[in-house]
Amino acid sequence: MAGARAESPCPLYHDAVELIGRRWTGAIVAVLLDAGPLRFRQIAQAVPDLSDRLLSERMRELESRGLVTRTELEVGGVEYALTEMGRDLDTTVCELRTWAQRWLSRTPGV
Amino acid sequence: MAGARAESPCPLYHDAVELIGRRWTGAIVAVLLDAGPLRFRQIAQAVPDLSDRLLSERMRELESRGLVTRTELEVGGVEYALTEMGRDLDTTVCELRTWAQRWLSRTPGV
Repeated sequence: MAGARAESPCPLYHDAVELIGRRWTGAIVAVLLDAGPLRFRQIAQAVPDLSDRLLSERMRELESRGLVTRTELEVGGVEYALTEMGRDLDTTVCELRTWAQRWLSRTPGV
Repeated sequence: MAGARAESPCPLYHDAVELIGRRWTGAIVAVLLDAGPLRFRQIAQAVPDLSDRLLSERMRELESRGLVTRTELEVGGVEYALTEMGRDLDTTVCELRTWAQRWLSRTPGV
């Protein structure tokens, strides 16, 4: 097949991989899938090495793209929850987890 | 569940999403999954807006992580092919494509 002209990837897929693959975003989505709704501070604790500034930025992007909702709590603070669109990433995250367990535990440098 | 301490994502999953999610890498993997082995120039054509320098960098990373093999052709040029590890991403890519078709075609700005 090496002589064939290769098809470009579907723009929607390209957009999805750039969105979910952005540094930290995949980890944030996985944490919310596992734990359900979380406060800002809980997400920050679950994803170490991620600054509050970057976490805010990522949460704003996820909210603007419709993957999470942001609720200001009466007791103070903010809670984030995945929307149906965000929760629907569970099969993708699950497949990538399976792949990671199968392959990355064998490669050097991990 | 908002009071619970959230679990950190599995480090292997985190590594996988950072690897595949890196800008352009998800698109390159999808192109190779669809088309089979390709020359450098064919990948460059299939992923527009990606400079040769960045494509080289991404291919070197995919090769060093064991996802692609690089073969120098007798006729000149280089051919890249997914390894078994790389091809095993097909279910993840397929799930993300399905998600993108379902959700991103509805959101504004796409």
